[in-house]
Amino acid sequence: MAKIKTIGVLTSGGDAPGMNAAIRAVTRAGICNGYQIKGIYRGYDGLINGEIKPFTTENVSGIIMQGGTILKSARSKEFFTEEGKAKAYDTLQREEIDALVIVGGNGSLTGAMEFARQYDFCCIGLPGTIDNDLYGTDTTIGYDTTLNTIVECVDRIRDTAQSHERIFFVEVMGRDAGFLAQNAAIASGAEAAIIPEDSTDVDQLAQFMERGIRKSKKSCIVIVSESPKCGALYYADRVKKEFPGYDVRVSILGHLQRGGRPSAHDRILASRTGAGAIEAIMQGQRNVMVGIRNNEVVYVPLSEAIRSDKPFDRKLIKVLDELSI
Amino acid sequence: MAKIKTIGVLTSGGDAPGMNAAIRAVTRAGICNGYQIKGIYRGYDGLINGEIKPFTTENVSGIIMQGGTILKSARSKEFFTEEGKAKAYDTLQREEIDALVIVGGNGSLTGAMEFARQYDFCCIGLPGTIDNDLYGTDTTIGYDTTLNTIVECVDRIRDTAQSHERIFFVEVMGRDAGFLAQNAAIASGAEAAIIPEDSTDVDQLAQFMERGIRKSKKSCIVIVSESPKCGALYYADRVKKEFPGYDVRVSILGHLQRGGRPSAHDRILASRTGAGAIEAIMQGQRNVMVGIRNNEVVYVPLSEAIRSDKPFDRKLIKVLDELSI
Amino acid sequence: MAKIKTIGVLTSGGDAPGMNAAIRAVTRAGICNGYQIKGIYRGYDGLINGEIKPFTTENVSGIIMQGGTILKSARSKEFFTEEGKAKAYDTLQREEIDALVIVGGNGSLTGAMEFARQYDFCCIGLPGTIDNDLYGTDTTIGYDTTLNTIVECVDRIRDTAQSHERIFFVEVMGRDAGFLAQNAAIASGAEAAIIPEDSTDVDQLAQFMERGIRKSKKSCIVIVSESPKCGALYYADRVKKEFPGYDVRVSILGHLQRGGRPSAHDRILASRTGAGAIEAIMQGQRNVMVGIRNNEVVYVPLSEAIRSDKPFDRKLIKVLDELSI
Amino acid sequence: MAKIKTIGVLTSGGDAPGMNAAIRAVTRAGICNGYQIKGIYRGYDGLINGEIKPFTTENVSGIIMQGGTILKSARSKEFFTEEGKAKAYDTLQREEIDALVIVGGNGSLTGAMEFARQYDFCCIGLPGTIDNDLYGTDTTIGYDTTLNTIVECVDRIRDTAQSHERIFFVEVMGRDAGFLAQNAAIASGAEAAIIPEDSTDVDQLAQFMERGIRKSKKSCIVIVSESPKCGALYYADRVKKEFPGYDVRVSILGHLQRGGRPSAHDRILASRTGAGAIEAIMQGQRNVMVGIRNNEVVYVPLSEAIRSDKPFDRKLIKVLDELSI
Repeated sequence: MAKIKTIGVLTSGGDAPGMNAAIRAVTRAGICNGYQIKGIYRGYDGLINGEIKPFTTENVSGIIMQGGTILKSARSKEFFTEEGKAKAYDTLQREEIDALVIVGGNGSLTGAMEFARQYDFCCIGLPGTIDNDLYGTDTTIGYDTTLNTIVECVDRIRDTAQSHERIFFVEVMGRDAGFLAQNAAIASGAEAAIIPEDSTDVDQLAQFMERGIRKSKKSCIVIVSESPKCGALYYADRVKKEFPGYDVRVSILGHLQRGGRPSAHDRILASRTGAGAIEAIMQGQRNVMVGIRNNEVVYVPLSEAIRSDKPFDRKLIKVLDELSI
Repeated sequence: MAKIKTIGVLTSGGDAPGMNAAIRAVTRAGICNGYQIKGIYRGYDGLINGEIKPFTTENVSGIIMQGGTILKSARSKEFFTEEGKAKAYDTLQREEIDALVIVGGNGSLTGAMEFARQYDFCCIGLPGTIDNDLYGTDTTIGYDTTLNTIVECVDRIRDTAQSHERIFFVEVMGRDAGFLAQNAAIASGAEAAIIPEDSTDVDQLAQFMERGIRKSKKSCIVIVSESPKCGALYYADRVKKEFPGYDVRVSILGHLQRGGRPSAHDRILASRTGAGAIEAIMQGQRNVMVGIRNNEVVYVPLSEAIRSDKPFDRKLIKVLDELSI
Repeated sequence: MAKIKTIGVLTSGGDAPGMNAAIRAVTRAGICNGYQIKGIYRGYDGLINGEIKPFTTENVSGIIMQGGTILKSARSKEFFTEEGKAKAYDTLQREEIDALVIVGGNGSLTGAMEFARQYDFCCIGLPGTIDNDLYGTDTTIGYDTTLNTIVECVDRIRDTAQSHERIFFVEVMGRDAGFLAQNAAIASGAEAAIIPEDSTDVDQLAQFMERGIRKSKKSCIVIVSESPKCGALYYADRVKKEFPGYDVRVSILGHLQRGGRPSAHDRILASRTGAGAIEAIMQGQRNVMVGIRNNEVVYVPLSEAIRSDKPFDRKLIKVLDELSI
Repeated sequence: MAKIKTIGVLTSGGDAPGMNAAIRAVTRAGICNGYQIKGIYRGYDGLINGEIKPFTTENVSGIIMQGGTILKSARSKEFFTEEGKAKAYDTLQREEIDALVIVGGNGSLTGAMEFARQYDFCCIGLPGTIDNDLYGTDTTIGYDTTLNTIVECVDRIRDTAQSHERIFFVEVMGRDAGFLAQNAAIASGAEAAIIPEDSTDVDQLAQFMERGIRKSKKSCIVIVSESPKCGALYYADRVKKEFPGYDVRVSILGHLQRGGRPSAHDRILASRTGAGAIEAIMQGQRNVMVGIRNNEVVYVPLSEAIRSDKPFDRKLIKVLDELSI
């Protein structure tokens, strides 16, 4: 394996707050350790199409506090084809890029792993997703910011819920993982959470209602993970039919959950793992994701990071149940 | 007219940030000037049903920074009937309340005016609504906070819009008044606003798109006033059909616009007009709304405050057009 | 007078949130109306030294939500000399700049007025200062954001004040004008404000203490305008000596009051007055400041805007007194 | 050992955001599991003096989002005497309190450990301190919120630093532990941190300056841990003397770092460890602190939690060095 001289960095998949801090960290730690850094625009599509620019420390100046990603992002379909990967490899050869740092979520790191295997290429992943659904890292870049954004929104909605004594179903992101919904419910003092890991049927719904509405509590907030079939609108409709006396409202937080100034936690996570990506390359690590566990930077094989079954801590359900009495 | 000894205060209609600051100001300025204060819960319904409690300075302690209203709020249908008003008057007699301070929007102050006329009762209005649709005051309590909340949300959405080069239609409150949408568009640097005061047809829509998408701008944000027929979803569908190449998304901000810690402006407005309500009563003013114009506390007859045609400053449309190039 | 073709824009004096929104508005409204725009860096010093760059719409893209000023700012001593003004005029001739838009406070607009008179040059001022000490505009660009920042800080400090039952003296900006301190005290529910417009002696101090500490209130917050001699430290020392039983603390907010994302209000004010500056030039106005009074854009002669005696509304003192019981 | 029926909860030492969430969690999880809960006011002093009130679920309603502590806090000297502890024990007997949950930092948990040993009493600690200086938990309640508050402040100060091209020394809390300063420096993109764990002499100071000022960077932010002798003022004075050309400013953030709405992280940490304290009691655990490591609730002997030498991760120094180039 030839010595690595030039490192490409790209962001892929849904944007997450802290991606810019990660780009900055990769760029500066890279330059600081003697590498040339190239920014690749629009994720894997930009890699395929050669949308690439050499980066200096100035390119990443003043971005640590900005949401989104200055490198733009996209969900590439082409990269998951043979032709796409081949074109991407051609670009890397032509640009003389010897290693790739990919900031993204489960799908993006899966793509990185496949590419790394097929072309024997050094790919280092950074966990950039608000969903917190990657193995081997305590949290992912963006998750903490999004959680804070949701909690701020629910704090606001509670003002109206209490003033008008209403029941609110608040839908949050996390189609496949209830981390956001469950933890947002705990943090916002919501009465219940409806998450994919824990099926909720009619009886439980009735129980939610009784729990939330009894005694002194006349308003109630239920956090619901987004779902094609059983989102907040579905549950609100059910409740309206079965408990016609209540004033039921729905709030779908939507895309505002993705953006915004990253939290201190996400900036630090991005900075440490971004610098860790360069260190991984210096150590000869390949095809790992850089995470933080137990306050320590760790390297996790990409194949393990993307395991689809990150366990859900069911004790969180008990915590919410006990604290929402 | 007998001397006024006891003043009742209530909040009515949609809750607005700063209502608590207004309740606090009425209560404390009232007590400070020798009045007894009674808090009336759940708006006019609570007045009809006698949900009333004497207030001391402690009852309003620590609420100036809280959204919503500790007095709860409701949109009463009964108060707009003869029987309802009669019951309300009975309650006032029984509770020995000599004057009412009503914090609410257009509908609530209309109810106050009718009641005042019919029963020759001293009603003082405070402009408590996020819609800014009352005459005679530069802004209404809650409007500034809501505007800031919207702008924060749009700042977040822009991160994603730019990262993914998308077109976002963001729907904000203000069914009958485009103040929020137009000013939020200016403040957030949006490309366009679609408001009830300025009909937008297909050609303009096309013009929006060209304006936003041309040259270096690849993302675009359009703020849309909520509307039963022509909201953000409607315009997004239109654009998807006519400009199929674009990645179009919708975000409906919904109820989170109502809550949250009131801004400094709204706390000051509520404090000054709340104290002004007591001064109005001391001066023998009746059936006026207390507002602020030109940094001065003013008294506006209720009949004038609720005029339905607060003019929209069309120069704001020009400002947005010029600055979104 | 020759036709104006090129307009220079600069920011001067202490930076204020919203200055970037003003630069953006001047640039875009200028270009939109056919002018060439040149950005002048580092205030009058940059004008003297020729630090100037042509601006396109892209130069001001994405800055509406940023605090500070991309044009940098400085307090120039040289511009207040004859030689300084002469050099500045030379630069303007050389750069073919026909009109200047100056965003700044009292001192900066005084400089503009003197220069305009001496060289018969078209100077348009925008009220850019957190101090709100300019005549003819309801508020100045930056004032609302700073007020919100102070109120957020005091909200935080109150948590500790109440938890530990302490007396806090919080020092805020506004050496010559108590607008910030007095309004921040009202908005934050503080017990008292000490401002330059209203001398506070020992007896009043004792009265503050009794007012704040009596009855159920065991913590107390006093907002103090910064002052070379009688700032928060001075009053805290006095109280410690005369009321030795109390736990007295001081917090000097300092420079964090200047920065941060501008509020919606300041962005709109900057956008409307910035566009108004271009309209003023088109109308042939000269040597005016653009402000907003009563929701309308107005033009105020520079000589009037800088009058040193903007009156302090003493009713605000009464409001605070009544509401802090 | 008799069965535990009644649990007392108190907050002690400097207040920290999330203490209220912890009180809520202990109260509700306790009641949910059949215990009676008593709130003890003003920390150990209130325990000595018997300032105690039975708590229901309503007593802790609506406090999860409030900074400070509704139970008040104090640093008790008396509790560290034999007489003080004896009086405290008398109160516990008289109030029939069988176990204590103490929310506090190093000093408060040391007091708890000594009391537990001497009187063979069940004490459960919760890590409530912004300093993050307790062993056995990844973070302490309040640390994440304070870190975010500091970063927000530095983001604001940077606007001014860049606009005026100044050097700012920003002093943050953490007399004995540089976690806050070092991590705040990484998160805010500061140029350097001066912390107790890493002595900084004149040569390093010069190096800081060169690093920050060279090339394109004309402004510079240095985060300094508070220190009786070598705080921000000390370093600013040194720099002013040795580098007279620079515009050097100091900002001491002070008490505003303690308060404010707790972050999502701190609310979840407080909720999970608060519920964990009740579970610890149910399991027969005694004299442990409840923490979270690696996303799991853990029990750490009090004697271990308070070890005075929580190690500082020196890799964080390297990260900051690399990323501030």
